[in-house]
Amino acid sequence: MEDVIIVGAGPAGLTCALYLLRANKKVRILEAKNYGGQIVNASKVENYPGIVRISGYDFATNLYQQVLNLGGKITYETVVKVLGDKTVITNNNTYHGDFVVLATGACNRKLGLPLESKFLGKGLSYCATCDGNFYQNKVVAVIGGGNTALEDALYLSLIARKVYLIHRRDSFRGEEKYIKEVEAQDNIEIIYNANVVALAGEEQLEQITIQDNLGKQKELEVQGLFIAIGQVPQNEVFNNIVDINEYGYIITHDEVYTKTEGIYAVGDNRVKSLRQLTTAVSDGSIAATEIIKNMAKKSK
Amino acid sequence: MEDVIIVGAGPAGLTCALYLLRANKKVRILEAKNYGGQIVNASKVENYPGIVRISGYDFATNLYQQVLNLGGKITYETVVKVLGDKTVITNNNTYHGDFVVLATGACNRKLGLPLESKFLGKGLSYCATCDGNFYQNKVVAVIGGGNTALEDALYLSLIARKVYLIHRRDSFRGEEKYIKEVEAQDNIEIIYNANVVALAGEEQLEQITIQDNLGKQKELEVQGLFIAIGQVPQNEVFNNIVDINEYGYIITHDEVYTKTEGIYAVGDNRVKSLRQLTTAVSDGSIAATEIIKNMAKKSK
Repeated sequence: MEDVIIVGAGPAGLTCALYLLRANKKVRILEAKNYGGQIVNASKVENYPGIVRISGYDFATNLYQQVLNLGGKITYETVVKVLGDKTVITNNNTYHGDFVVLATGACNRKLGLPLESKFLGKGLSYCATCDGNFYQNKVVAVIGGGNTALEDALYLSLIARKVYLIHRRDSFRGEEKYIKEVEAQDNIEIIYNANVVALAGEEQLEQITIQDNLGKQKELEVQGLFIAIGQVPQNEVFNNIVDINEYGYIITHDEVYTKTEGIYAVGDNRVKSLRQLTTAVSDGSIAATEIIKNMAKKSK
Repeated sequence: MEDVIIVGAGPAGLTCALYLLRANKKVRILEAKNYGGQIVNASKVENYPGIVRISGYDFATNLYQQVLNLGGKITYETVVKVLGDKTVITNNNTYHGDFVVLATGACNRKLGLPLESKFLGKGLSYCATCDGNFYQNKVVAVIGGGNTALEDALYLSLIARKVYLIHRRDSFRGEEKYIKEVEAQDNIEIIYNANVVALAGEEQLEQITIQDNLGKQKELEVQGLFIAIGQVPQNEVFNNIVDINEYGYIITHDEVYTKTEGIYAVGDNRVKSLRQLTTAVSDGSIAATEIIKNMAKKSK
């Protein structure tokens, strides 16, 4: 019997563990793949306060080291179900906790192009807020048609010399105010009815090939490509214990509580306005503190 | 005319600046004292995710370095008033911004004893990390029952010959880990259910009087007294533009918005469940991102 079972060993989950372990709580961290979550894909992080520059992998390793220093460790198993009584069923075992923290993150939707993973962190990014600053006065492209793509294009227009905004349909599905702003921005060129069909470059991304609805192709020289076609949280497996919004994110109340008592959601998997390291670690520390408070109440 | 005026150069304010500067926004950071806020008083930070161990001063310096790297810098002036139209009046100047971020933190609560200010810096301190070193092999007392008091007692036990830890209640409200450490430390003597009611000495503090729940008094010879009884935000100066709760904290709505359009509050000065570096930097990044979005709307 654990005090707390944490599902997911990304920044939010590991921070939650860190805070719980400092309070001598018994914690089991379950992770299906590798520790660190999405940040391990970031080659360079410069917007995490207090660290001038670090790779995502080193960040995650430092954080896991903090957990290890306190006696915590990760159990590498895949969670298949969590019950309302805080039973957690994995591919190998069944665990019981007083509290469960869902820290399962989200995955970026991929274009599905052959060289997509090769150029990740070398000109290709899924997060303008994270990586935009590396493209001062460069030419970049954003792919997508929703609010994220529009916001990314606007954000990048403050930094890059030129921004192509490429959308496969003939109109955006984001908010009108962002659409108007994008249209008004001198250095944003909108390309409707086009898909990106190829990536090219030596070490770094140098060129993308777009194709219109008639099959006509064209090359664009870009130093950066921001793919903003959505994120996919993987919360379906938890739909028995939490409410999930239309985009698949867990709905939390106040301080990362879900609708089921004793079950919390932290990090990118929940409905929130900003998904960054800063907000992930904030979530993790808040959940831990709330749990410690609630545990104290319980044991009285 | 600045895009954003940030009042306060602690972790929340500097993180807000970091995020805004990365989006090439024009930022003015106003600070009355020194950069870094309260964290500079922490000798050792081990619960900030991604940094195994760092001093608070080094943390703050790293964060300011990130801001400096992006061309930001601090203007050292004291803000005396902020108007609803985003005019910021300091002791020296008047500035105008499109947005104002209040990141003024909180400061130390005083005991309220007659000679408290007389002995400040002459045996009396609110910061063990700053002043502890003056008390090599001396006898000191710490007042308080939370994490800060516990941490201060532990820190001082490394320097002083003896540390009294005086708490007005019968149990501490800090982390279990610290409580156990304090209890295990040979040269820390815990005195529960007691208040400090008088200070005495010629030039320097020489003696404190404690009083128990039954009114019984006792003198303790100490050369140092460290007051760690909590914090007070200083938001009265902003009461024309924000709502303030009974404890003096700014009431924010959703994502760090205050009741006045274009004015945000971030960090320890606002109503929130947890005041940590994690939540401060989260606030700062959220405010910046919201401002960048709202700026796009405005420029239509």
